[in-house]
Amino acid sequence: MSMAPVSTPDLREDETLEDLQLRGLRLLQKKTGFRFGMDSVLLADFAAVRAQDRVADFGTGSGVLPLLLFGRGKGSEFYGIEIQPDMAEMAERTMRMNHLEDRVRIYTADAGNAWDLFGPCSMDAVVCNPPYGRAGASLKNPTQSRAVARHQEEDTLTRFFKSAFRILKGKGKISLVYPAEQALVLMQAMQRAGLEPKRFRLVYPFADKPANLVLAEGVKDAKPLLQPMPPLIVYERQGVLTNELKSVYDNNG
Amino acid sequence: MSMAPVSTPDLREDETLEDLQLRGLRLLQKKTGFRFGMDSVLLADFAAVRAQDRVADFGTGSGVLPLLLFGRGKGSEFYGIEIQPDMAEMAERTMRMNHLEDRVRIYTADAGNAWDLFGPCSMDAVVCNPPYGRAGASLKNPTQSRAVARHQEEDTLTRFFKSAFRILKGKGKISLVYPAEQALVLMQAMQRAGLEPKRFRLVYPFADKPANLVLAEGVKDAKPLLQPMPPLIVYERQGVLTNELKSVYDNNG
Repeated sequence: MSMAPVSTPDLREDETLEDLQLRGLRLLQKKTGFRFGMDSVLLADFAAVRAQDRVADFGTGSGVLPLLLFGRGKGSEFYGIEIQPDMAEMAERTMRMNHLEDRVRIYTADAGNAWDLFGPCSMDAVVCNPPYGRAGASLKNPTQSRAVARHQEEDTLTRFFKSAFRILKGKGKISLVYPAEQALVLMQAMQRAGLEPKRFRLVYPFADKPANLVLAEGVKDAKPLLQPMPPLIVYERQGVLTNELKSVYDNNG
Repeated sequence: MSMAPVSTPDLREDETLEDLQLRGLRLLQKKTGFRFGMDSVLLADFAAVRAQDRVADFGTGSGVLPLLLFGRGKGSEFYGIEIQPDMAEMAERTMRMNHLEDRVRIYTADAGNAWDLFGPCSMDAVVCNPPYGRAGASLKNPTQSRAVARHQEEDTLTRFFKSAFRILKGKGKISLVYPAEQALVLMQAMQRAGLEPKRFRLVYPFADKPANLVLAEGVKDAKPLLQPMPPLIVYERQGVLTNELKSVYDNNG
């Protein structure tokens, strides 16, 4: 697929322009604040999204997940929901830069109210890279304890899952990436909302190190039984990606 | 440590005598029925048991777990609970053969009633290799559906965990091995009983295959937050153990 070269008049002073090395796609990001990383790439790779799917992204931020999915041929229409107006506005400019404004719609809203925007049973898939422990995301008050912050994160997850359950079609899937130490919290919140945990994959930075992330899928109204996946090991040794990780990044093309 | 050579007059027709290759320890097993395997070895390796600990084994069967723990210098007194009288009797003969009848006591009882035998807060650790999906264990009636069998297994787990909670001292630990696809069921049952899931490790038969087992630890009255561990990969290639597995077996010595 060839694309017209993108222009960069929309780049602002507090922003950078990233070449995603993926079908010519480019991404605006804030110089400070959360910047997309490997977790987004792993989630785009993990998410079971078919070519024709309608996909909602809860907390889309810069809009990187819709772009990474689109670049992989996963999904046809994308609905990115972002509560911070300045982020949503930047994500909209990113989509226009990529001539994808008709494929990726950005909404300034709380993903917990997504069912209000889209109606019930309207989406085939939901993806979400929640703001776990990000500065400025959940830990707004530096004197706030970690326990309180975690409790707020759990509340957010619960609201997101209720909302996802309502907008997903039957057997529709939600895919997330989350800290491995909170895998149980995550899966229990999914299950309580009727999104049964199915495929899950632990991500290990090195073969001899503890898992730091979990990739997890919840299926609406499915029967309970996990589907464990092979280990995903990131680095062969310091600074050298494993062959699997290289191929995850190569699938970008 | 040197041990007197063991005699074998106690071997019966339906039994075999296994050399555990571990400090001279030997094990009687039924020719038919469940025979100990790698899952027991992995659990003995995984379980956090200190040298001075009093350890209960729920569903001890042939008594292999107390032997494997003792052989590793983990635990000082062992209490093996087995509901099947013929198995319990055989386990007792095994302990006598190894001159360990004073260190490993075998009880013919339901582990769900262990608190009745030992009293509250009497054990530092509980280990359990539950009879998941073993022929003759939970699936007694071949016409019984897998869902019903699984439900019965969950009931057993719930009773075991309640019992373990009562006999464990504060911060006491239970360690189990279970099918990876039922990791969520397992951890939820632990949590409901007040045994908070902490360390857990997924076991992968090969580096590129799904996890088939989970090693999990629950700590009495601990705060909720998992402690993921590195992946445990069994085979380098068909028939060849990984170096880590070799060292797990070598720790036998």
